Amino acid sequence: MAVINRVDTFDIRFPTSLSLDGSDAMNPDPDYSAAYVVVGTDAPDGLEGHGFVFTIGRGNDVQVAAIDTLRHHLLGRDADVLLADMGATARLFRDDSQLRWLGPEKGVMHMAIGAVINALWDLRAKRAGEPLWLHLSRLSPEEIVALVDFRYLTDVLTPDDALEILRAAVPGREERTEQLLREGYAAYTTGPGWLGYSDEKLARLCREAVAAGFRQIKLKVGGDLGDDVRRMRIARSNVPDGFPIAIDANQRWDVGAAIEWVNALKEFEPAWIEEPTSPDDVLGHAAIARGVAPVRVATGEHAQNRVMFKQLLQVRGVDVLQIDATRVGGVNENMANLLLAAKFGIPVCPHAGGVGLCEAVQHLSMFDYVAVSRTREGRMIEYADHLHEHFVVPVEIREGHYVAPTAPGAGTEMLAESIAAHSWRNSYSEVRA
Amino acid sequence: MAVINRVDTFDIRFPTSLSLDGSDAMNPDPDYSAAYVVVGTDAPDGLEGHGFVFTIGRGNDVQVAAIDTLRHHLLGRDADVLLADMGATARLFRDDSQLRWLGPEKGVMHMAIGAVINALWDLRAKRAGEPLWLHLSRLSPEEIVALVDFRYLTDVLTPDDALEILRAAVPGREERTEQLLREGYAAYTTGPGWLGYSDEKLARLCREAVAAGFRQIKLKVGGDLGDDVRRMRIARSNVPDGFPIAIDANQRWDVGAAIEWVNALKEFEPAWIEEPTSPDDVLGHAAIARGVAPVRVATGEHAQNRVMFKQLLQVRGVDVLQIDATRVGGVNENMANLLLAAKFGIPVCPHAGGVGLCEAVQHLSMFDYVAVSRTREGRMIEYADHLHEHFVVPVEIREGHYVAPTAPGAGTEMLAESIAAHSWRNSYSEVRA
Repeated sequence: MAVINRVDTFDIRFPTSLSLDGSDAMNPDPDYSAAYVVVGTDAPDGLEGHGFVFTIGRGNDVQVAAIDTLRHHLLGRDADVLLADMGATARLFRDDSQLRWLGPEKGVMHMAIGAVINALWDLRAKRAGEPLWLHLSRLSPEEIVALVDFRYLTDVLTPDDALEILRAAVPGREERTEQLLREGYAAYTTGPGWLGYSDEKLARLCREAVAAGFRQIKLKVGGDLGDDVRRMRIARSNVPDGFPIAIDANQRWDVGAAIEWVNALKEFEPAWIEEPTSPDDVLGHAAIARGVAPVRVATGEHAQNRVMFKQLLQVRGVDVLQIDATRVGGVNENMANLLLAAKFGIPVCPHAGGVGLCEAVQHLSMFDYVAVSRTREGRMIEYADHLHEHFVVPVEIREGHYVAPTAPGAGTEMLAESIAAHSWRNSYSEVRA
Repeated sequence: MAVINRVDTFDIRFPTSLSLDGSDAMNPDPDYSAAYVVVGTDAPDGLEGHGFVFTIGRGNDVQVAAIDTLRHHLLGRDADVLLADMGATARLFRDDSQLRWLGPEKGVMHMAIGAVINALWDLRAKRAGEPLWLHLSRLSPEEIVALVDFRYLTDVLTPDDALEILRAAVPGREERTEQLLREGYAAYTTGPGWLGYSDEKLARLCREAVAAGFRQIKLKVGGDLGDDVRRMRIARSNVPDGFPIAIDANQRWDVGAAIEWVNALKEFEPAWIEEPTSPDDVLGHAAIARGVAPVRVATGEHAQNRVMFKQLLQVRGVDVLQIDATRVGGVNENMANLLLAAKFGIPVCPHAGGVGLCEAVQHLSMFDYVAVSRTREGRMIEYADHLHEHFVVPVEIREGHYVAPTAPGAGTEMLAESIAAHSWRNSYSEVRA
């Protein structure tokens, strides 16, 4: 028995808006932040589970307050029991009807649940002495199905459907694991394309991204069409012929405007248009997908839960599914999202960047390859070169690929000195004053 | 010039779970609560704007924390300017990109914005010396259109579409206003049907509801089919032949289960099935609507924003639209929802009950009748007999109708002594201890 005796939260903020890192048409001045939680037990191993929600500044304190409301589900509980049945543990949070009212299953409260679930997975993987991706990849199909909440999914994906997908992936697990350890998982980079960057910086970063071996670059668009045309032309002339350049509008447009704008950029052959409109507009995405074909539509970083992913797939509103490690209800709900994508045969290219999103989400893509989709074709993980130095196990990029992590845990643990230095009431308020 | 010099928030909770008031299949033990905000200025009139978010207990503190993050948009600002252009004021909050990340436009952060917007409308109506419904009903079509955020709506509803609807309603405004003052607006009651009530209490309350002149009653269902059959039979035998009895599953079912369950209750001729499944499942609602016809589908109290309402209407997933006064971005976004319903010719029967939802939402239905839809046919406002005594202008029900309020304001102001007595750190924690 290992009693949970500590649930600490931290309001961690970085003043990234000062350098315009991460600027786009909807988010001109983000201050990358993390509502951070540490779960500790009285076990002699001293292991902790770390999790967080990525936010972009103001309101990070609200996100922390939401995590704080979950303390009573954890403190005094036996971690052995909670970790042994993470499906039941996830339902503990889901079935807190008073908290559910604040969503349901969306926004601040849902992300708080995700952070705690991810922290528990971090603890479980550390106890197993395995990196999370490998730990998950060794679960049986039946164990994986028991982790997924099929509520609201069964018209499209039943437990039996999921079992069929997972069982088909049992043969070859070892081989794919070895492949990942040898080759890693392909990455693409948004580094060159933030809206706040100068043309010169854009051109230079495009050349550097290609030289570094990234598979694709991505440009933020949607501020001004003339600027977008100019920047796409610069990008195209600084990468090899046929090199994929995705574009990302960060929800800037209405349906009609999205179709017009993307078609105006078609000559530059965008690899995909990302977040063309409201992440809530399932039917809008379907209309846009029809209106801009053959340009593909990508979305998901703001999709609030598995019910939205289900529908985006049902209406073919999405050609590339972009899961996010901290937007939904943690590892468990992202398993549902991966299974839905596999059912529809749609590639998953996770959203990352921010604070620690790369560190966290790589585990999900690697689990997906080994145990769910069995393919890396057309799949890449986003990469942005921000703030990795604050993590105990920072991502490692080699020749444009995520190196498969081998350290135990979910990758979500920040350095103690970084937590202390960037907790809001300490450094951040001074920098901004 | 009237400078906003005070934004006070309160965490107000009532221990309603002790009596099982408000219990349903998804919410067995709600403690009706309000995350409450008061906006004051330095004007000599001493008027204040009051607004709130209704929650059901735990997490009300998170909701208050979210309202607190909006203070910097208000304090020190000229209320004259903010109130004169409430469209621009609503965009102030919408365009705070750091806070937007926490939704976007959904959940805790979006409801917080709604509370503040509603508080400002309360202040504006008080300054005008008019009840909010009348104040809104006297705006020109152009002024109303300027209040609505058409972002993400224009594929279905443009400003021109809205103008056309509103201009068609200008003739007859006076007459409809007089009608409302004379006759009020029809109500239905959920009073008899809470899951936690005994069969005897159910039967008695059904008879009382009919005697009181209510147009319809509503039963909570979805816990156990045998119980639902028994309770529907009791209800049917305690109301006149053909009297409408709606049923409400509070999101309990998956799509297939919803269709089966409702069809099993069809013999009792339910007036509508409310919230059969996840409020996020637009396509699911459409499938259910097809599967249970001619039973109508009602939903909306948990629809997070205008984008969801748009889609529910686009796919004919809803036959009765249930707006809620505090779930979305305030009066402004509910104007969008009313316009969408009018465009599709779908009746609006607001969700109410909880704490103060009746007091607030009646203004929207009355505005809708005078200035938007021009009809009360098939329209009713939900009524639950809870906690009205805490409001400065409590709703008045006469012969099953909401009496049109004539006191200035939005109806959202609680009594100072109620705020003091039920602020969480005072009374609530003692009652529950």
